[in-house]
Amino acid sequence: MLNPVTSEFITSLCSRFGEDILRPTSDLYLEEPRKRITGHAGAVVAPRNTGEVSAILSMCHEQRIGVIPFGGGTGLVGGQIMAVDQGVAPLILSLERMNGLRAIHPSENVMIADAGMTLAAIQDAAESENRLFPLSLASEGTCQIGGNLATNAGGVNVLRYGNTRDLCLGVEAVLADGTVLNNLSRLRKDNTGYDLKNLLIGSEGTLGVITAASLRLSPKPARVGTAILVVRDPEAALELLAIAREISGDAVSAFELISGIGMEFARQTLPEIHQPFAQSPEWSILVELGVPAALNPETLLEDLFVAGCEGDLVSDGVIAQSLAQRQEMWSLREHIPAANKKIGAIVSHDISLPLSELAAFIPHGMAEIAKIAPVRVNCFGHLGDGNLHYNVFPPQGCNASEFAPLRDDIERLVHDLVHAHGGSFSAEHGVGRLKAGELTRYGDPTKRAMMLQIKQALDPRGILNPGAVLS
Amino acid sequence: MLNPVTSEFITSLCSRFGEDILRPTSDLYLEEPRKRITGHAGAVVAPRNTGEVSAILSMCHEQRIGVIPFGGGTGLVGGQIMAVDQGVAPLILSLERMNGLRAIHPSENVMIADAGMTLAAIQDAAESENRLFPLSLASEGTCQIGGNLATNAGGVNVLRYGNTRDLCLGVEAVLADGTVLNNLSRLRKDNTGYDLKNLLIGSEGTLGVITAASLRLSPKPARVGTAILVVRDPEAALELLAIAREISGDAVSAFELISGIGMEFARQTLPEIHQPFAQSPEWSILVELGVPAALNPETLLEDLFVAGCEGDLVSDGVIAQSLAQRQEMWSLREHIPAANKKIGAIVSHDISLPLSELAAFIPHGMAEIAKIAPVRVNCFGHLGDGNLHYNVFPPQGCNASEFAPLRDDIERLVHDLVHAHGGSFSAEHGVGRLKAGELTRYGDPTKRAMMLQIKQALDPRGILNPGAVLS
Repeated sequence: MLNPVTSEFITSLCSRFGEDILRPTSDLYLEEPRKRITGHAGAVVAPRNTGEVSAILSMCHEQRIGVIPFGGGTGLVGGQIMAVDQGVAPLILSLERMNGLRAIHPSENVMIADAGMTLAAIQDAAESENRLFPLSLASEGTCQIGGNLATNAGGVNVLRYGNTRDLCLGVEAVLADGTVLNNLSRLRKDNTGYDLKNLLIGSEGTLGVITAASLRLSPKPARVGTAILVVRDPEAALELLAIAREISGDAVSAFELISGIGMEFARQTLPEIHQPFAQSPEWSILVELGVPAALNPETLLEDLFVAGCEGDLVSDGVIAQSLAQRQEMWSLREHIPAANKKIGAIVSHDISLPLSELAAFIPHGMAEIAKIAPVRVNCFGHLGDGNLHYNVFPPQGCNASEFAPLRDDIERLVHDLVHAHGGSFSAEHGVGRLKAGELTRYGDPTKRAMMLQIKQALDPRGILNPGAVLS
Repeated sequence: MLNPVTSEFITSLCSRFGEDILRPTSDLYLEEPRKRITGHAGAVVAPRNTGEVSAILSMCHEQRIGVIPFGGGTGLVGGQIMAVDQGVAPLILSLERMNGLRAIHPSENVMIADAGMTLAAIQDAAESENRLFPLSLASEGTCQIGGNLATNAGGVNVLRYGNTRDLCLGVEAVLADGTVLNNLSRLRKDNTGYDLKNLLIGSEGTLGVITAASLRLSPKPARVGTAILVVRDPEAALELLAIAREISGDAVSAFELISGIGMEFARQTLPEIHQPFAQSPEWSILVELGVPAALNPETLLEDLFVAGCEGDLVSDGVIAQSLAQRQEMWSLREHIPAANKKIGAIVSHDISLPLSELAAFIPHGMAEIAKIAPVRVNCFGHLGDGNLHYNVFPPQGCNASEFAPLRDDIERLVHDLVHAHGGSFSAEHGVGRLKAGELTRYGDPTKRAMMLQIKQALDPRGILNPGAVLS
């Protein structure tokens, strides 16, 4: 059993670290982006350095007080928010003050960053040395690298550069009892013992608090080209991806599926966003190539367009001719979640499928959902990774709240179908609290048993992010 | 305490699985490539499928019998061999019979393989579908993918494609008590719980026996070009690497440092190997580019050569003009270990360093070693990854055995220096039994404590590869 944060505990914190170690317990820490959970907290602390994180965790361990590590608060599965009925009000430990760049080694393509740096600040620091930190996602202005690591965030460049874990060489982390793991490696290769870095990455704050990371940078591609191509269907899009990988020498940095419904949502709710076509095509893809100076990305995209037309995969398209046009295309893609929010989803899914199952799944899922209710599905996302955001909306003119009673049925149907196709109910958002039940339902029992054994071994009092991932 | 393999146990194995579950306890299982350890074994078993592995481990768990999982036996740190004085003779569990290709999904770039397939067989299976499995190392004809995964093997293509762990999407593994972890995922993205795949990969058989893996394939580069360029020194080589990454669009698949001593060793001991230069230059690099059809790799290598000459980085070079010439260049690189073996090393090191520390380390280390003895250092390896094989040989005309008493001093000196430079004492070979002491000496104490907690949680009786990694 965990204990509540007492006034004695707060007094002790303040006397040890000064009163400004505390932050007001505001909505900032208690609301999640989709407002599906409202949280509670005994207090919010914002330590200034790893030593303070260590001392605070040591106190919490001693007194069996639950701790939620808190980054930018942009997670979509409630990993950073504990509802009132989910347990004793925890201490929220915000990394917001630990936002310094510790070091950058351009010749090594390595950066050492505090966990509280925003992703945008990380990208900017890389850019200032003419390097690329390729992680890119909609919340990059707010989310923090520590949270990106804790959740192994994905985004639009995974196809070429991998998830957050692939961009990390090592971490510094504080364990449940306050012990500090020093593993800020700048090495590309180091085969000396268990891979604790990857164990901590994606554990959503349940095994340790990541306080800093050694990040892997890349050279910036000399030339970048972007296009939106109208494809026959998702199957044609996947065939087109294989051609794009081939002709670019595997230099496809993004390959994003956009549905006609998604374009329409943006057209209706965000008229300021530039639309590439007068009428929204049923399926299109945004493709981006990053190539060396000796190649012309527009020429390659033209080749891709021609090959796509000849193969009956592509029927129309626009190739960006300027940076402004590239930005317009990305703006459309990146505003799909904002448009979705304005329309109001009944339920959202962050699923992945084996690539050869994906094209059949999309219409199959829609047909099955239609048997429950006459809803609309906006299916979009990172096609090259097999990762779809498969979000369900009410019919035109209706409100999502009318369909709230069907939410669980639709979610069950989609996740059952994904599972039957060999897919995952969480491709990039993680498990958090909202999907902890799904992990029990769909996860391999041995995997779950191993996870519980590891959790018990590393956090025997269960103080770290209680109730997240392993409910 | 572990128990010996008794005749009752063997009788029980044979009655359950048939007598041919046993293999003769031959040198094949008891000698390691550098003959630094001779092992012992209570028996050798070769199960035919995962179910048999599970049943055997369950019996061993029940009776507290130590088990060494055995792949191709090519490991260089004694992870597969237990010396007589290191413990009770274990059961050797060879995966040699589990060598089937379970499935290949070319459109997904995924292959599911049994752990006992040799790396060469995996490469061939990918090739037969016009795909690339990029892991490549000298022992590829003998080593098995299960062993590659258990040790997170490296090799010559890590720079572009990553270590073995980066090429694996999921594993099937049998845990200490015989439980089977089913995680043969074909997904690129799956954020549902702790990263057990990467925990098992690189754990050298101490946490589970990998029985199958889901492997990530790549499209084959349309055109490949190879060159050997004479560089001023390792620092110049690293500057050249940055240029090569830039002009090729990060398509450098290999960037291997070759020393003059290494070339001389090959010239002396393997006269059939083609030498690119009449006299061995002090430092050269083998560079390989894999580029799309729209690029000419020879032209890019010429550009690299010109840029290198202009920057005073490069003074000579040969660009392969045919597949035969490419193969000759690779043959030289790949025969360096064979030539080393014929010369006879006093001690070998598999080290990695932060890239910006590497150039200074190489001569610094040589100067320090020279204070101990007038030896020769053949420093070669995967420069782009910061991974050097820094092997120490007796002076010309002397025998390594004369210097055997100095081996430990030289190793200590090199590893101390590597550690002081922020490097690793094992870049790609692992820890095994030969470097378990180094892990205790140089490893972060918190890391070691976490490893012990995890080992205790997942293998409480300590039957899996006893004495390896954590001595």
